[in-house]
Order: sequence, then C-alpha cells, then structure tokens
Amino acid sequence: MSLSTLQVALGERSYPIHIGADLIGRADLYAPYVRNRRAAIVTNVTVAPLYAKQLEAALVAAGATCQRIELPDGEAYKDWRTLNQVFGALLEAQADRKTVIVALGGGVVGDMAGFAAATYQRGVPYLQVPTTLLAQVDSSVGGKTAINHPLGKNMVGAFHQPLAVIADIATLQTLPPREYAAGLAEVVKYGAIFDEPFLAWLEANAGALRAREPGALAHAIRRSCEIKALIVAQDERESGMRALLNFGHTFGHAIESASGYGRVHGEAVAVGMALAARFSARAGRISEADASRLVGVLQKLGLDVAAPRFAPDVWLSYMGRDKKNEAGRITLILLDALGRGAIVKDTPPEDLRAFLSAT
Amino acid sequence: MSLSTLQVALGERSYPIHIGADLIGRADLYAPYVRNRRAAIVTNVTVAPLYAKQLEAALVAAGATCQRIELPDGEAYKDWRTLNQVFGALLEAQADRKTVIVALGGGVVGDMAGFAAATYQRGVPYLQVPTTLLAQVDSSVGGKTAINHPLGKNMVGAFHQPLAVIADIATLQTLPPREYAAGLAEVVKYGAIFDEPFLAWLEANAGALRAREPGALAHAIRRSCEIKALIVAQDERESGMRALLNFGHTFGHAIESASGYGRVHGEAVAVGMALAARFSARAGRISEADASRLVGVLQKLGLDVAAPRFAPDVWLSYMGRDKKNEAGRITLILLDALGRGAIVKDTPPEDLRAFLSAT
Repeated sequence: MSLSTLQVALGERSYPIHIGADLIGRADLYAPYVRNRRAAIVTNVTVAPLYAKQLEAALVAAGATCQRIELPDGEAYKDWRTLNQVFGALLEAQADRKTVIVALGGGVVGDMAGFAAATYQRGVPYLQVPTTLLAQVDSSVGGKTAINHPLGKNMVGAFHQPLAVIADIATLQTLPPREYAAGLAEVVKYGAIFDEPFLAWLEANAGALRAREPGALAHAIRRSCEIKALIVAQDERESGMRALLNFGHTFGHAIESASGYGRVHGEAVAVGMALAARFSARAGRISEADASRLVGVLQKLGLDVAAPRFAPDVWLSYMGRDKKNEAGRITLILLDALGRGAIVKDTPPEDLRAFLSAT
Repeated sequence: MSLSTLQVALGERSYPIHIGADLIGRADLYAPYVRNRRAAIVTNVTVAPLYAKQLEAALVAAGATCQRIELPDGEAYKDWRTLNQVFGALLEAQADRKTVIVALGGGVVGDMAGFAAATYQRGVPYLQVPTTLLAQVDSSVGGKTAINHPLGKNMVGAFHQPLAVIADIATLQTLPPREYAAGLAEVVKYGAIFDEPFLAWLEANAGALRAREPGALAHAIRRSCEIKALIVAQDERESGMRALLNFGHTFGHAIESASGYGRVHGEAVAVGMALAARFSARAGRISEADASRLVGVLQKLGLDVAAPRFAPDVWLSYMGRDKKNEAGRITLILLDALGRGAIVKDTPPEDLRAFLSAT
C-alpha cells in the first residue's frame, strides 16, 4: 500500500495527514519535526506493548532523544489526574518548550496528549499517531483537544493543531471489534452530513469494510479525512459549519455522560445519529425512508442503534450542557437530506421531550 | 483623576488597558463586552467583600447576567483543584461559550481565571480587573495564564489575551504593605531592563510611591504598562525579547518553588533581580556600582533583597525547570546596562554554582 498525503489548509498552522500501511516505523515521516529535539511519546498501557518500541526506534533514527509516558487505558481516565501524570513526567525529565509530544493511541490518548501539548509550559508542538479507526478519521485531525469533567464530556480543552498526523492503517487489523465498529460510526457521519455518494459507497462496501479489507479501509479513511480537513479549514474554531461534525454527538455525549463513560464513544455516536435521523424525520426535514436508510447503513456496519431508556429529564439535562448551546437553548445537528447536515438552534424543548419520551 | 487608556497592539487580538481611579463601578467600560451576555466573576474570598458587589452592579448595568465564583486566597491554591472548582461552577450554571469571565483580584486570580477562560469549552473571552499593583503593572497584561505544578511554578497554562484590562488604582490604597511593595518590584523591573530614565524617576520618587500618592502611582503604572505592551506586541508568545520580562524571575521562581510558594511573588522577584544584577556585575556586564544602584532602588522602595540560603544544588535544580531553558541549559536574563536587559543562554553552570555558593 502506498502512502497517501493530504493537507489541512490552515495558513501557518497547515499540516499534512499521511495515510498508509506500516507508517509507524518510518523515520522519514518524523524527521522534519523531531531532529535534534526531545520527543515525549504519550501512550497507554494497551497500545504501548504493540507499537511503542517501533515508534521509539523511528524517532531515534529521525534524530530525537525520546521519553515514554504510559497512561492507564480508557475514557474514565481522561481527566485532570491523568493529565497531571503527563505534566509530572515531562517536568521530571526537564522537558523544555521545544519538546515534541507524540500521541500514540486512540482518541482518548490523542485528546489528552494534545491538551497536554496545548498547555505544558503554555504550549509545545505535537504529532498525532492515531492507532484506532476513530482517531484516524476524526479525533486526530482538526486540533480539538480536551479532557472530561464530571459534569460533562470534553468540557475543558483547547484548539491546538498538530504538526502532522501519521495514520498507519496496519494498526486497524488488530483493533478489537467494538473499537473498530465504533470508528465506522464516524465514517458514516461524513457521508450523512456531507456526501451522499460516499454514504452509498459505504452501503455497497459494508462487507469489505467489516472484513477490514485494506483497499476499502484506505478509501474510507482518506475520504473521511478529506471531508474533515475541508470543514476544519473553513471553520477552525467551530464558530459555524464545523458544528456539523457534531452530528449524532449531542445525543451521543448525553448517553456517555449519563452512563458514566461506560460506552465506546463511537457506539454512543451511532445511537446518537440514529436518534438525530429519526428526529429529523419527525420534524419533516427528511423522509422516514431516508432515516431508515441511514440507520440501515449503521446496522450493516455492525453498529447497535438501540437507544438507552433514560428519563426525558436526564436526556435534556445532559444535552443542556453541550458546548454548542447558546443562551440555554439546545443546538442540534439534524439532516435536511442524506448528505446535507443542518445546524438547528431553535428546537422547542417540548418537541425534544415528546420525541425522547416515545423513544 | 481622569481615565487614561493605552492599547496592546496584537492585530485582531488587540485590546485596551484603562487606568484610573474608581473604574470598577463604571458600567460604560464593560458594556462593549458583556451586553446581553452571561458574565462570571472569578475572585477570591479576600477581594470579594471589597469590590464584588460594585462590579456586579456595573456588569448588570452594562446589560449582563452575572454569576460569582469565589476561590480561596493565595498562591498555594493556584492549582488544578481550584481550577476545577471554577469549571464546576460554570458547568452548574450552564455557562456557554459566549460567557465572559471577569477576573477580579490579584495575579493569582488573574492567572487562574485567565487559564479557566483559555480552556473552558476550549476557550471563552475574559476581562481583567486587577486589584493589586503587581497585577495592574504586570500579570493582567499580555495574555499569560497559568497554574502551578508541584514541580514548578506556572508550568501549565496558555497564551490567551483578555478583551480589556480595567486597572482601578483606587484599589491600591487598601493593599497590605507587603503586597504593595511586591508590586513595586515589578515596576522597578521595567526600568532595569528597558528604561534607565524611568529607573531614575523611580529613585527620585521612591518616597511618593511608598506613600501611594495617586499622581506618582498613575505615572508608574502607565509607564510600566506602556513598556509591557510594547514588548508583548513585538513577541506575543515569548519566542524572543518577551523573555526580558523574566528579569529576576529565574532566581525568583526557584525561591518560590523551593520555599513552597510561601513568599509573595514580587518579593521573590525583588531578591531575584538583586541576584541577577550582582551576577551581571560578576560576569563583567555592568559595574558593581550599577548593580548596587539597582539594589538601592529596591531597598528605597521597601523591598528586602537578602537571598535565602539554599544549597547550590537546590538552586540549580529549580532553575533547571524554568520555561526559558532549552536543551537542559539555563537561560538567564541579565543586564548589559541599567535600562538594557539581555537574554543569556550560555552561562556555564559552574559559574552559577560558584556565584550561588558565595551568596
């Protein structure tokens, strides 16, 4: 498989996304960023045994001195306590402002390592080396970094763009089935909000994707990153259309928060997209057939779309804390067609309550 | 006393500094930023009884809805725990991304409120309403925000410029003597690194400044802010000359860290400036007479310049963690003349050790 590179166009903060098999060990991809510098790999105890040595060797071959920081695995650890572990390790090693942090892992590692990079000594550069499908198509691209707060997911964070994203698709072959399916949910999102032909392609290639065929995977990841890069280039700090990328996330974050982050993020987003599609149909924005088609694509890709049975007040309370909200009103991302998302700020709470009661 | 305004020129992040007596209650100064918005005052238990009601009334008169967050007082609380209190209060009130945080207090409150603003929901705007001399001449201007880590001061933070700084010099009349003198240390710093005539003016007006005469104070604050604004406009993110503002701080931070933040920041900086001046003389950069003159100005303003007796290894260990350092080498701000600071990256550690042993 050859290397495919695309660019996130953000002026002086522009950066490349490299996609291909067996990239983790390629020193040439790191050299422009780490030569004669200190590199600090931030990873977790699950990913480290698989890829850390290979990455370390590549960084050293690229001219860096290297330190490794291993965190516990899981969304439950995406908090201040774990972040302070990263700062402590950096300080003990006397890591300076030119240190490059290298995030090796999934979305949780990337979000935390990125936020550590955004705030260690008021900001150091970082590289994303995502090892899950979700991180490769979504969280590693676009510069959103964050940790969770007991009162809401990703409530504390920063916009901090990486120097580069190096997505090694060979890592996806060993991903646990739930993690893999969860990543496919974010891939479906891009089709749903932006690209109906891509949604149709996903529908037609669901079998190949579930079988993790490298060719199908490479196409799905590249197209997802292209769409994300395009949207982020238009609206880096989410003052407008970037909110479309939150399709399925308003319901999804509420599910994650209300259930104590027990679910894989992408699984919650899949349920959230199904709910957002059904609610779009109920609001007369799309047909019931279109909503069912989207739900069908999710199911074909192995995703569970059944909503948990929370009381409407629980839903509304968590949805009320979403970052997209303004002046106490819930902002939702709905669909005006398959392939066309819409940012909707004026949903009457009683409509939402009625919908959630009937779910 | 009339209102004096100067501008920090940072392109689209430019902002005004308003200096004058009795500004806290002036709704017209807040209205451009908070009308029809939510405002969250972040202050501490010492400052709140003095000014919070007046500020709340002004914000409400300016068209805001208002919430107040009171923190414990002191550098010892400038940490994650206290910051999480701020996030918790904001989330409980469902504060959204358009909320304006208003920092009311000294440097600790300003640094923490600013960092909370930099990271709450990945960034909200904020106003600085500094109530100490140190905050008015230094920490409220320039967008540096931070909290401490057990292994080093201000090690976690962000560059995040305020919308405006509103420096009410009437608040200085009730400042405890140590706090006030500590602020004068930072005023002296501007003379030392940038403006010999200003240093001479401080020398000549030491009596008026110690007596807190409003005219002398207004001049000292305005000139300090002018110099800081000029330097920050040249180098917002401290990649070059902004490091000059750290004169006295490398030794000073080590003193603060090694003594568990028991000292007032400005007091540690005064000792640090005396040490940096003496070390500059020892290195042949300035005369012993110039070093003594600077030390004399600090003493005339009521500052203690005696260095604590740490072992050289303790000094070097804490100085080794300074954010200005690169590749393990300690960067110092020294003087090439009174009024001309220099960023020095190649001090031999043995010279520093010999100097500190003899101190």
